[in-house]
Amino acid sequence: MRFGPGTIGSGTFVGRTSPDVGLGRTDGGGITMGQALAAIGYAGEAPVGGYPIEAFFEAHIEQGPILERDGVPIGVVLGAQGQRCFRIVVDGEEGHAGTLPMELRRDALLGAARMIDALNGVAFRHAPHPVITVGQIQVRPNSRNTIPGQAAFTVDSRHPDDGTLAAVDRDMRAACEEVARRSNVTVSIEHVSSRRSVSFDPECAAAVARAADKLDLPWQEIYSGAGHDACNLALAAPAGMIFVPCAGGVSHNERESARPEDLAAGCDVLLHVMAERAGVA
Amino acid sequence: MRFGPGTIGSGTFVGRTSPDVGLGRTDGGGITMGQALAAIGYAGEAPVGGYPIEAFFEAHIEQGPILERDGVPIGVVLGAQGQRCFRIVVDGEEGHAGTLPMELRRDALLGAARMIDALNGVAFRHAPHPVITVGQIQVRPNSRNTIPGQAAFTVDSRHPDDGTLAAVDRDMRAACEEVARRSNVTVSIEHVSSRRSVSFDPECAAAVARAADKLDLPWQEIYSGAGHDACNLALAAPAGMIFVPCAGGVSHNERESARPEDLAAGCDVLLHVMAERAGVA
Repeated sequence: MRFGPGTIGSGTFVGRTSPDVGLGRTDGGGITMGQALAAIGYAGEAPVGGYPIEAFFEAHIEQGPILERDGVPIGVVLGAQGQRCFRIVVDGEEGHAGTLPMELRRDALLGAARMIDALNGVAFRHAPHPVITVGQIQVRPNSRNTIPGQAAFTVDSRHPDDGTLAAVDRDMRAACEEVARRSNVTVSIEHVSSRRSVSFDPECAAAVARAADKLDLPWQEIYSGAGHDACNLALAAPAGMIFVPCAGGVSHNERESARPEDLAAGCDVLLHVMAERAGVA
Repeated sequence: MRFGPGTIGSGTFVGRTSPDVGLGRTDGGGITMGQALAAIGYAGEAPVGGYPIEAFFEAHIEQGPILERDGVPIGVVLGAQGQRCFRIVVDGEEGHAGTLPMELRRDALLGAARMIDALNGVAFRHAPHPVITVGQIQVRPNSRNTIPGQAAFTVDSRHPDDGTLAAVDRDMRAACEEVARRSNVTVSIEHVSSRRSVSFDPECAAAVARAADKLDLPWQEIYSGAGHDACNLALAAPAGMIFVPCAGGVSHNERESARPEDLAAGCDVLLHVMAERAGVA
């Protein structure tokens, strides 16, 4: 996208972000969003937000593989996952790969590897499963014949329920500390960022399900793993979302693809749910 | 060192490397070893090697922590470890950290982490222990919110006995393949390099032990984890080595340190073993 982060318009509308922040975002060429809006004649004088919304509905591809796997065209979105991110640093001691016996080693990468496996196990001990991802890792000195003295990796954990996410957080810390003890290394866990979960209005979700039923479209309940404008609007009005399947769960990528009939079904549900809410159905 | 790799002089002497290879090695400034020898008047006409050696003895710091840990000043070196190095590539599938459920993932880093733990286990299943080290790892795309689609890491395995090292090789492959199967990823194992083990002449080792006994110096048998000139000379003559302790096993580093009394003990043993071999003791 030209001006990051995403959903900045809806975030500004509901007062999560001040207008100055959004207008001051720059693109890759150093142009601010305010300058770009003025250049196309869209920099108006009216205040942002502040007027009432009866309800907000948004249709979107799932950006995940669940509806495609289950062969269901409509997802009734109940909410969006909360997220907690961490940076974990494991400290051991560098040593020569040829001369340091196994039983004297303090191998930071071995400790990190066991933690990565243990964190995966934590995800499966909570039902329904949270998602826990280690996406980045870096070791020092990163030399073929030196036992790593330090390994640092990221953790991204998400779950629709903030209470479960807090329990997952506790279990992850305990798992890493247990691994550190038995692996003769030390671990430090830095909290990087958090995002609270969003629960959509139950009546909005029920209305999406009713519209799908009316159109004879199979549906199932689902949570969003990504952020959306509706997650911001839910702070200011009753909000709901409709998901449709996409190929392989891929999005924001040249491979992103959805079938025309699924997109049409999503639009049809959106039309019916809006008409019902507006009292014109 | 200015001209790598190490022990190139002894390797040339015993015919392991041709003189042209050594003379053609360049330093960081592009100067060849041949040019550097000519500049200081050391580029002679005599052939390298080809004359008989009665025996070769070398004294060296251990470059490992064993003698220091055990409080023993003299190591009677029985040989040098063989080495096999590998590059292991684990392929899974990239996915979104928020939207792809745990049970549908093909996480390359999770597979690699389990392999790293399993390889450590392989080392402890062989006695006396080989050393197995994973020193480098790299994941793709290395993004906090993307499940890694690929992870590549190095393996350095060493043992004094080439047969054990071959068995370790087989066990490591089996362990990685078993992890790949249960982790829903694929693995490819590329052999990068090998170095055969060296066994020093038993009579030379016995002579080192006798000299230590004569000097009332405690000694123990040990294997070298690193390469030395004596490993090359063992191809051309009876050879032996004497190790002395060094602080923390650290070498080729500003922290390298050995106690004067240990260095003196090593030199004393070297003197006595040479004198005995020369028939002048």
